[in-house]
Amino acid sequence: MSIALIVLAAGKGTRMKSDLPKVLHPIAGAPMLVHALRAGAALEPGRIAVVTGHGAEAVEAAALEHDEDIRCVRQTEQLGTAHAVAQARAALEGHDGDAIVLYGDTPFIRPETLERMIEARRTHDIVVLGFEAADPGRYGRLIMQGDGLDRIVEFKDATDEERAVSFCNSGVIAADSATLFDLIDAVGNDNASGEYYLTDIIGIARARGLSATAIACDEAETLGVNSRAELAAAEDLFQSRARAAAFEEGVMMQAPGTVHFAFDTVIGPDTLIEPNVVFGPGVSIENGARIRAFSHLEGCHVATGAIVGPYARLRPGTELAEDVRVGNFVEIKNSVLDAGAKVNHLTYIGDADLGAACNVGAGTVTCNYDGVMKYRTTIGAGAFIGSGTMLVAPVTVGDNALVGSGSVITQDVPRDALAVARARQETKPGRAKRLFDMLKNKKKSIEERAS
Amino acid sequence: MSIALIVLAAGKGTRMKSDLPKVLHPIAGAPMLVHALRAGAALEPGRIAVVTGHGAEAVEAAALEHDEDIRCVRQTEQLGTAHAVAQARAALEGHDGDAIVLYGDTPFIRPETLERMIEARRTHDIVVLGFEAADPGRYGRLIMQGDGLDRIVEFKDATDEERAVSFCNSGVIAADSATLFDLIDAVGNDNASGEYYLTDIIGIARARGLSATAIACDEAETLGVNSRAELAAAEDLFQSRARAAAFEEGVMMQAPGTVHFAFDTVIGPDTLIEPNVVFGPGVSIENGARIRAFSHLEGCHVATGAIVGPYARLRPGTELAEDVRVGNFVEIKNSVLDAGAKVNHLTYIGDADLGAACNVGAGTVTCNYDGVMKYRTTIGAGAFIGSGTMLVAPVTVGDNALVGSGSVITQDVPRDALAVARARQETKPGRAKRLFDMLKNKKKSIEERAS
Amino acid sequence: MSIALIVLAAGKGTRMKSDLPKVLHPIAGAPMLVHALRAGAALEPGRIAVVTGHGAEAVEAAALEHDEDIRCVRQTEQLGTAHAVAQARAALEGHDGDAIVLYGDTPFIRPETLERMIEARRTHDIVVLGFEAADPGRYGRLIMQGDGLDRIVEFKDATDEERAVSFCNSGVIAADSATLFDLIDAVGNDNASGEYYLTDIIGIARARGLSATAIACDEAETLGVNSRAELAAAEDLFQSRARAAAFEEGVMMQAPGTVHFAFDTVIGPDTLIEPNVVFGPGVSIENGARIRAFSHLEGCHVATGAIVGPYARLRPGTELAEDVRVGNFVEIKNSVLDAGAKVNHLTYIGDADLGAACNVGAGTVTCNYDGVMKYRTTIGAGAFIGSGTMLVAPVTVGDNALVGSGSVITQDVPRDALAVARARQETKPGRAKRLFDMLKNKKKSIEERAS
Repeated sequence: MSIALIVLAAGKGTRMKSDLPKVLHPIAGAPMLVHALRAGAALEPGRIAVVTGHGAEAVEAAALEHDEDIRCVRQTEQLGTAHAVAQARAALEGHDGDAIVLYGDTPFIRPETLERMIEARRTHDIVVLGFEAADPGRYGRLIMQGDGLDRIVEFKDATDEERAVSFCNSGVIAADSATLFDLIDAVGNDNASGEYYLTDIIGIARARGLSATAIACDEAETLGVNSRAELAAAEDLFQSRARAAAFEEGVMMQAPGTVHFAFDTVIGPDTLIEPNVVFGPGVSIENGARIRAFSHLEGCHVATGAIVGPYARLRPGTELAEDVRVGNFVEIKNSVLDAGAKVNHLTYIGDADLGAACNVGAGTVTCNYDGVMKYRTTIGAGAFIGSGTMLVAPVTVGDNALVGSGSVITQDVPRDALAVARARQETKPGRAKRLFDMLKNKKKSIEERAS
Repeated sequence: MSIALIVLAAGKGTRMKSDLPKVLHPIAGAPMLVHALRAGAALEPGRIAVVTGHGAEAVEAAALEHDEDIRCVRQTEQLGTAHAVAQARAALEGHDGDAIVLYGDTPFIRPETLERMIEARRTHDIVVLGFEAADPGRYGRLIMQGDGLDRIVEFKDATDEERAVSFCNSGVIAADSATLFDLIDAVGNDNASGEYYLTDIIGIARARGLSATAIACDEAETLGVNSRAELAAAEDLFQSRARAAAFEEGVMMQAPGTVHFAFDTVIGPDTLIEPNVVFGPGVSIENGARIRAFSHLEGCHVATGAIVGPYARLRPGTELAEDVRVGNFVEIKNSVLDAGAKVNHLTYIGDADLGAACNVGAGTVTCNYDGVMKYRTTIGAGAFIGSGTMLVAPVTVGDNALVGSGSVITQDVPRDALAVARARQETKPGRAKRLFDMLKNKKKSIEERAS
Repeated sequence: MSIALIVLAAGKGTRMKSDLPKVLHPIAGAPMLVHALRAGAALEPGRIAVVTGHGAEAVEAAALEHDEDIRCVRQTEQLGTAHAVAQARAALEGHDGDAIVLYGDTPFIRPETLERMIEARRTHDIVVLGFEAADPGRYGRLIMQGDGLDRIVEFKDATDEERAVSFCNSGVIAADSATLFDLIDAVGNDNASGEYYLTDIIGIARARGLSATAIACDEAETLGVNSRAELAAAEDLFQSRARAAAFEEGVMMQAPGTVHFAFDTVIGPDTLIEPNVVFGPGVSIENGARIRAFSHLEGCHVATGAIVGPYARLRPGTELAEDVRVGNFVEIKNSVLDAGAKVNHLTYIGDADLGAACNVGAGTVTCNYDGVMKYRTTIGAGAFIGSGTMLVAPVTVGDNALVGSGSVITQDVPRDALAVARARQETKPGRAKRLFDMLKNKKKSIEERAS
């Protein structure tokens, strides 16, 4: 039987003071919503419903960009969590099996935790996710009876004895889909805020003789985000975990606190990450590479033995093969560099294919854009591009060809050929002295006039 | 009645181990003295006196650079705080109203705190600023009597009962100017160190039947700086506050601990600041801009929708209009970029005006300096500057003009015109192979001779 | 009498999950082994033996690179610390005096601590280094008797009373060489793990009537590294100490937590280090220089008054004289810049000598490599190199010479001469408009065909 995810993502997040809907605020380069969806993905769900509200269009676009099979449903009025889940009924039409309710602003639930919830469903009709709160404050309390969950008590309704309980409700709930919607139908809004609360289904279920239980996760997993400061704290938590995991994998970092990972960064063992490196989404690095200080990587692959940086920027679509060297103040975009290619200094490589062991000199630019369209540059294996060369795409430099420094290459260069596009040097003895004297006199007279 | 500030700034700061006078050591890009002056400025003072001593010339220059109406007076001998204040008498000549004594090495007093002191002056002749010390240690104690301040007791003279008091003296004092100087005249130096202490005026005032009180501020506001480690701690405190304030304003930061603000940085809501960004003085950014990783901004304005970096450096005099894009390894100085202009890669733009939606290719340089004088470059709206272009200023490229890659432009280019300054490409088949063979043989023979 | 060091460096470091032998993992740019050797160097040892095992070749290479007089000996089987020390016997042949046993994975022992151990040898036959453990856990306990060391008790063999002792064994031991090896001969392996333990020599010595003592060091000095997380913690500790020491020396840092020192960085007082600066090995900076944000320095010397960065990269062999300016996106390698030379923007200077007060324009490249060999560039004092110049080495530009922007210089330029290598600008009215119209039409028709 397959599992359905229902992800609540309708909140506005007023305290974020932002036009961006709350669940789209990013952690480690991915919207919080995507973190929740990725956790849920471990259950291999057969159906995913995302309940949107504030900023619905943007949230739906982000959800579909992540997974085009997601069914988005809108909650046009925010009448409480039970009401939100109810909106997903049509989206789950025909689904047979468990449903689990997640939250788009709760990005840290672990996949293993969700698996344990589904496991617990074997013995109980409803499974709630709880946590031992260091400071239970105003959280709802989970009142257990043996291994069963007797009830959820809201703080304001709790007795002193109940308030002494530190096992608290995360809001995440699993149940058979049909049961879930049946129970929700029975939820009322006869309370101070006039909202329909999802937690009320526990009482209704127990009254109907259904069984409930709660399993515990780390409190950190249930961290919700309601302000920018909390978002920054969540980012911090993500990064701490990512750094610890990287160490576990055998990645080397001198100053882990200065390395920023994306949600999907993959790095092999014995790769060295120097201080001040930022990973955007979509980066994979094989083992035994070296990412030097002040580098910025997004959407790229770096193979074994490659050395990147310092001050290298790899943009999406960059593929570096074994032992490639990309040096300082070099930007590479949508380009493939074959084994041992070298681009060491002050260069822009965009929309290009570089052959094995070619050498691109300092100050080279692939002129890939003519103001209207983009074109591709090809550099052959073993070719040597002199410094300060403009390669006006579309253009091909053949294997082992040589381009003289300071050339503007507009025509293809055959293999083994030499291409130069360069004016003759003219040297005029004594002329610099006369020029500087003239300029200095001019400056002096300007200054005299000004004073 | 106007208020006068007296800022004591004569100390040497031996423990700083620096030739720079203590009060000129910077926090967030401004001398400590300027932080004190900025706090005091909230009172709209009619007169400001800065008492200098060690490094007087440099301190006076910094004070006058901040506000040319400041009256600097010198304390040639360091005979204590009362003696320092006494030097300001002439500078306050003719001033009628309250005076408040601040310290150039105490940069964190809040404007609101000073306003509360002036408020308290309505009911008391002298107002002292105190703080509840977490560890009172050897601070002077403020002994209150009801809402009045009975006396200030130095730690070494305090009884056990007095030492148990944790309300401590910050040294900041407000009183009517005339009263202040009258009281100071009565201060003696009959004590172990032979100095004239400002705090002694409380006892004298009380003996004369004047009333005193003390108001409390956060201990952090009274933080003084005496060593480089304390300076770094003060910088840290400033940055923590600035980051928290930015979050409150709706600024987005992924890694706030890696963002360094200046004392006067202004950033609008929904602007995203990526990791590792440094703001020098004089930066304002509108809402909804994006400052990418590893960028460095000083003295510039960035409008809505603009994207800056990664690795962009904006220097003083840079103005970016809406939706401008400044990309990696780009330096911009004293230049105005109109809406939608793009300068994406490896470029130096100095002393230039760029028209709307123009596109400047990678490796372009505005050659603004001829070794003697600086000149201006103008690029028209919609113009396209090919990569690797040298624009030798003074020069103008007209609207929608096109400059071919690798050109050195020394003459103006009319609108809609194409300008190219480029040698013809010559391609010599097989020549690269022969050259490389020759070079390799040469290297081999050199190596053989060497061995 | 000279001192011999025996440094144990045979361990594998399984928990490091690395192909690199444990003692070669770096802290602040130097292998841990080198840190241990540097601490020992303060004793001016007459003989140094390094005992290698796992990764012996790499470890030996690193040891000899550090000091070619080191005698490396191999421990082919890892049979315990006493067995490891025994391997050094031949390497110490003929040495007369004390030997001290150090550990290649214990990088923080202070030189002064080792000096105190040697001092204590005057009164005792064997000196052990101990520390007061905050959490003694399973460390061996040092049981003192007056100022003598009675015995070392392993945790598992300790009585409750002995376990209550918090003075623990670091493993570092000093004794006369001959005595040390005599005692080691008597060590057996009749224990659970079948290993020969160095600590057993204390019991043997005491049984023979020899005297022992233990001196105490800070627990932090004895920090050993067994995992990457511990390595990162050790790096952190190193950096904290280095930052505090720099403050003590009068170095200015706005954000010390973002400055990364190497093990051998030397910086003079009143030098300002801005945020996000990384020092590799071999950097010395005189007083009163300024290293701006995002700079990366290795193997270079920076003189008084020089300003480096932001975004400057100084590579090995760079020497900057007084008041040199190296600006943003500039890389300098193996080059000497004389007083007041300026290289302000987007430039690569490699294998070059720059004269006093010369000015190198933006986008300049010393083309030092022809694909086979490297050559040198010389720029005279007061010379002005226009922006976008390619200096094709070997080449010399004379004093006060002027090179026009965008030139490719292949021949020497005499002093006071002007050199230009540049094509004439051709300007074609209206041509840009026609070209863009054509391109836009082409794009449109491509898009129409595609749709």
